[in-house]
Amino acid sequence: MSVVSLLAELADVGASRAGGYDRLAWTRADSKCREWFVAQSESRGLDVEVDRNGNLWAWLNPSLPGSALVVGSHLDSVPRGGAFDGPLGIASAFAALDLLADFAPTRPIAIVAFADEEGARFGVACAGSRLLTGALAADTFRSLTDADGVTTAEAMSNAGQSPDHVGADLERVARIGEFIELHVEQGHLRTSAGVDGLTPDAPLGLATEIWPHGRWRVDLIGQQNHAGTTRLADRVDPMLDLARVILEVRNAAEASGILATVGRVRVSPGAVNAIPGSASAWIDARGSDEDRVVSVMGDIGRGAVLESWTPTTPFDSAFVADVGKAIGGDLPLLPSGAGHDAGVLALAGIPTAMILVRNPSGISHAPEEFAEDGDCERGVVALAAAMRSRTA
Amino acid sequence: MSVVSLLAELADVGASRAGGYDRLAWTRADSKCREWFVAQSESRGLDVEVDRNGNLWAWLNPSLPGSALVVGSHLDSVPRGGAFDGPLGIASAFAALDLLADFAPTRPIAIVAFADEEGARFGVACAGSRLLTGALAADTFRSLTDADGVTTAEAMSNAGQSPDHVGADLERVARIGEFIELHVEQGHLRTSAGVDGLTPDAPLGLATEIWPHGRWRVDLIGQQNHAGTTRLADRVDPMLDLARVILEVRNAAEASGILATVGRVRVSPGAVNAIPGSASAWIDARGSDEDRVVSVMGDIGRGAVLESWTPTTPFDSAFVADVGKAIGGDLPLLPSGAGHDAGVLALAGIPTAMILVRNPSGISHAPEEFAEDGDCERGVVALAAAMRSRTA
Repeated sequence: MSVVSLLAELADVGASRAGGYDRLAWTRADSKCREWFVAQSESRGLDVEVDRNGNLWAWLNPSLPGSALVVGSHLDSVPRGGAFDGPLGIASAFAALDLLADFAPTRPIAIVAFADEEGARFGVACAGSRLLTGALAADTFRSLTDADGVTTAEAMSNAGQSPDHVGADLERVARIGEFIELHVEQGHLRTSAGVDGLTPDAPLGLATEIWPHGRWRVDLIGQQNHAGTTRLADRVDPMLDLARVILEVRNAAEASGILATVGRVRVSPGAVNAIPGSASAWIDARGSDEDRVVSVMGDIGRGAVLESWTPTTPFDSAFVADVGKAIGGDLPLLPSGAGHDAGVLALAGIPTAMILVRNPSGISHAPEEFAEDGDCERGVVALAAAMRSRTA
Repeated sequence: MSVVSLLAELADVGASRAGGYDRLAWTRADSKCREWFVAQSESRGLDVEVDRNGNLWAWLNPSLPGSALVVGSHLDSVPRGGAFDGPLGIASAFAALDLLADFAPTRPIAIVAFADEEGARFGVACAGSRLLTGALAADTFRSLTDADGVTTAEAMSNAGQSPDHVGADLERVARIGEFIELHVEQGHLRTSAGVDGLTPDAPLGLATEIWPHGRWRVDLIGQQNHAGTTRLADRVDPMLDLARVILEVRNAAEASGILATVGRVRVSPGAVNAIPGSASAWIDARGSDEDRVVSVMGDIGRGAVLESWTPTTPFDSAFVADVGKAIGGDLPLLPSGAGHDAGVLALAGIPTAMILVRNPSGISHAPEEFAEDGDCERGVVALAAAMRSRTA
């Protein structure tokens, strides 16, 4: 089955009236995507299982000797996200397996759908893969809540997934010999003049590393009061501090040559006629250099709380080179500013590679995220070639 | 029954775990306050009715000739609001009626609880009184939704109140001969040195006018994109514009000598790892002078949409003087920066007065809002004196 047809089956799942997709982890839309994964796996005679952290696995020949070649990505999205970030990797894995129908691998192959990759609901990205490798402690995960106060355990339970045994699963990690994640590109391949030395017309690329990435939260406390009766001089208005933090983050990012973003804020109580009592800003900072990423928060101060930190994650260069050789051609190599489950597995010592599919708009985490049908098919052919090469 | 005891009966209704009260219009907490109103009215033998706009009326001697003296306020609150803004006026009205138990009025007296005064849920303040007088069109009211997309009609229906006949009720307006609203003060009486020429130790005051008051919304559109892959130079980030608007509003207010506040913002999609696609700010502006209030928005620009405008609302000075004379003493006269149902009735041509009760903290629309027991009792005595004088 073609990757385009496979993706078309998800076209209506979680479609937002405002455009894009709302498939946040453990919501009804996410569950529908997971049901689709199970149906696709079963129609191909794969053995499906759900691990203790909610990750879905579909095994081909699990009884063969040796560790498995695992391919896959995730199904969840950010709010109003695109159609490709995540699902393209899963659909391409099924389509690649179909291309290999007449091929007899000598090692097990598994397709994985990692749970809760985006972190858009509970604030911690790659929760499923991090729990698996032990990079995220079960207690920390259980303490997370969404914007409505729903805990991760409640969300999983509501989706029919027991949260009782989340946590490191090193026996399962040991079965993963190598991991390849195919993913829509999210910016670097896009300009006609090329960026970072890439050729402008490359439909596919390989990732060399994932940039270091920190998330911080700044909590600003004021004095809630009446907007119509409190003199300006008497106010302690955290909204003003929030505005200053937003601009300081941008200025510090420009000065340091990194990326830093305030994408989420919370203002309480959020009434038009009340000076807020408190305000919070979440800061996302990334760049090619760890020291410069950290230095931005040094400039901001204000008691920022580190919510997550991922160091520079290089992919195994020998493994990436082997995957590139199997695919053939001269694929551009580029760093990823976005985090991925592939990075989590690489940090756990698993040889890992990422195949990136061109995104002409350069836009991601948004409805405009896009990949041409032809480029998606090229990605499948490349993934199939890599899978054949690694399991022959 | 004392006003303190009456307020104590509401002490647990809608109490927020975070402090203060959440009694937003047509919520369960608001309904409980309304049930309390009905119970208090019935225990005093008053005739209770709900008008087509959801305002509650309790009548003493409705069959007496002449138009009624109406006293009252509202029961709903802003999020995490105080215990006094609204309920103090209702509880004081019941307590004042108890003080007048042996008095035989020659005109009807009614206690009113106006619905949805704060506008905290649907964005339009004084909805109940504005619908009543026709200042708010029924169609406009029906088009309002809360943050969860619930319409005013759904909210009213869920609370057991039919929304089918909302709208101007001029026959009822004609029955209101005069209106007196007792209300906790919200700022001006508070400093020990006195503000605006007030004596520092006055426990009560009378309002002369309500300041002009505008609410605007600014919608800022950007390009939603990935926070980790989009170069700073390529971004169209509405969060940065939001920050600038917040600071510009404050600077313009300082320059013009008015009050202006951004108390509510909305950022979409609000994901930590996405540059937002859009952001909105609500701007509340008030001051002693209409031109200066409007000029602030001229400074901001950015296609601001006017959501509501209330001109300077003077209270009938002869009626206020009569109320002051009935109360006795030399009550300070002061403008109100806060809007009130009293202002809506005054704009409809009804002689209206407001008795203000000292708030030592000066804080309102917040958990710290406060009035001393003794000052509350003084307010009841004053209200009873005014009621006796106007209905003798």
